[in-house]
Amino acid sequence: MAQSNLHESAIVFDGLIVSKWGRPVFEHMREGGLTAANCTVCIWEGTRDTLLNIAQWKRWFDEHGDIIMPCRSVADIRRAKELGKVGIVLGWQNSSGIEDRLDLLPIFKDLGVGFIQLTYNTQNYVASGCWEKHDGGLSQFGERFISEMNRVGIVVDLSHVGARSASDAIRVAAKPCAYTHICPAGLFDHPRNKTDAQLREMIDSGGFVGIAAYAPFMRNKGDSGLDDVVDLFDYVINVCGEENVGIGTDFTEGQDEAFFNWIRLDKGYGQRIVPSHGTAPTVKGFNSPSNYPALTAAMERRWPERRVRAILGENWLNFLERVW
Amino acid sequence: MAQSNLHESAIVFDGLIVSKWGRPVFEHMREGGLTAANCTVCIWEGTRDTLLNIAQWKRWFDEHGDIIMPCRSVADIRRAKELGKVGIVLGWQNSSGIEDRLDLLPIFKDLGVGFIQLTYNTQNYVASGCWEKHDGGLSQFGERFISEMNRVGIVVDLSHVGARSASDAIRVAAKPCAYTHICPAGLFDHPRNKTDAQLREMIDSGGFVGIAAYAPFMRNKGDSGLDDVVDLFDYVINVCGEENVGIGTDFTEGQDEAFFNWIRLDKGYGQRIVPSHGTAPTVKGFNSPSNYPALTAAMERRWPERRVRAILGENWLNFLERVW
Repeated sequence: MAQSNLHESAIVFDGLIVSKWGRPVFEHMREGGLTAANCTVCIWEGTRDTLLNIAQWKRWFDEHGDIIMPCRSVADIRRAKELGKVGIVLGWQNSSGIEDRLDLLPIFKDLGVGFIQLTYNTQNYVASGCWEKHDGGLSQFGERFISEMNRVGIVVDLSHVGARSASDAIRVAAKPCAYTHICPAGLFDHPRNKTDAQLREMIDSGGFVGIAAYAPFMRNKGDSGLDDVVDLFDYVINVCGEENVGIGTDFTEGQDEAFFNWIRLDKGYGQRIVPSHGTAPTVKGFNSPSNYPALTAAMERRWPERRVRAILGENWLNFLERVW
Repeated sequence: MAQSNLHESAIVFDGLIVSKWGRPVFEHMREGGLTAANCTVCIWEGTRDTLLNIAQWKRWFDEHGDIIMPCRSVADIRRAKELGKVGIVLGWQNSSGIEDRLDLLPIFKDLGVGFIQLTYNTQNYVASGCWEKHDGGLSQFGERFISEMNRVGIVVDLSHVGARSASDAIRVAAKPCAYTHICPAGLFDHPRNKTDAQLREMIDSGGFVGIAAYAPFMRNKGDSGLDDVVDLFDYVINVCGEENVGIGTDFTEGQDEAFFNWIRLDKGYGQRIVPSHGTAPTVKGFNSPSNYPALTAAMERRWPERRVRAILGENWLNFLERVW
């Protein structure tokens, strides 16, 4: 598909990708005109395995330096755009990477971690998850965790966090938080989707919302297409305002059944938390970072250029500038 | 102090000791006529450090085999009594020892762990603590944790667990749980003390209550004496019945300020959870395992021999027989 001039010149930031990392996905990111993304390096891993994942990224930055580069600041992301490379911001979908040690947070910030989700679906030291039966709210350790994240400048991601823990986090955080990859419950009721009240609470505190294009969270599931994705944006923009919304696709390109089994079982091996089986259905025409131009085209059919540029990436960069 | 004949012949079981382990404490245990005790080997440690603590105990069993021996069953405890040795049951005050792996529980059972407290004061993967601001109850991981503890036969200890998590645990557990070392809130209101309703809930489910002689939980604090300890027993026996109550001193003999600082800070280094500073005050005349004969003497002044023997250890052994 031919890229519009708008897409070619736009900053495109994706608030969450959890694809099967390697050269093929890196090439799709560049083909799709992606400027930079929050790339998951921790879901259930503890400290050692998270460090090993980051060590692998360091090797990839060396081996594939022709198309990817690490980004720790908004300036880095703009530089990636100038160089025609894809900027990689490392991100965690769980605080398991520090285990029980708050003092590891600045270490991981130094290593390039720009986003940390407080928990992945279930309870941990910090918070409770959106798939937990009860949510007692943020723990005292969680309050300190957020305080330290704010101090070192890591985005507090609440996408998979329980409702009460998320409210607590937004209340105690000194810097704005984000839902990096969510769908609105107003369009489809699902444990992972956020109600209008939750979206407003996030925005009223200066926070940010990234829209996922993850078919299981969408009313038309595997029959969803690009227009359904733009419907998600329209809905959330209507609740949150167009300056507080961006992309957070949750792309899982190349991931196999074993991966989906791992993420859906508690701690990667235990109780079935997410009931689905097999690889997730994807949105037709939008299931790879090579497809961003098609999203831009669908947006351009509905919106003025200013809004398209804002949603594609400028809003994310304004938010990240405030937090990092 | 001369030991009464009753004390000499009685089974004396202590439901929790967290003293500074080593030959001097082992000798005090033998001098005091202790038959066996739940000896803490994990408070904040993860898997590796807990294994190292158990490895140290294995060396102690070799080096001090003249006075201590490992016990994994009630038969082992009765054998220790016959041999005139002190039986050691290893116990955890936190589930941190398995980190995120339920499959480690049978391993630690094999290694001699007979008691595990779900959490120590604050929230973890399993439950919330009695010093946490909110308690959302047992997690889904926590339900599986208890199910596995029941299967392999480890006592579920709820002493430092939050009220809602403890109720959840008692409800889901297939075997009875225990408060191994608590004081009654009816005599002194304290975050660690248990209300009459909590004590009744434990007993109604077939559970067990061990009475702590930890001065900070007692109304007369450091001015407490042996009569105050027997008052605790009288109070709890009145609520729970004399067959469901035993000893759980919480002795900390030999522990220094650094130890108390470590246990009172979240995860051993973080937020101050327990406000006290310095070493804890102790009960006059009852602050070492060498003092059990004095407790027996104080009990004999108030109770018939049958009750004294039951409270000193026979009740504990009946309970352990059911759980292990």
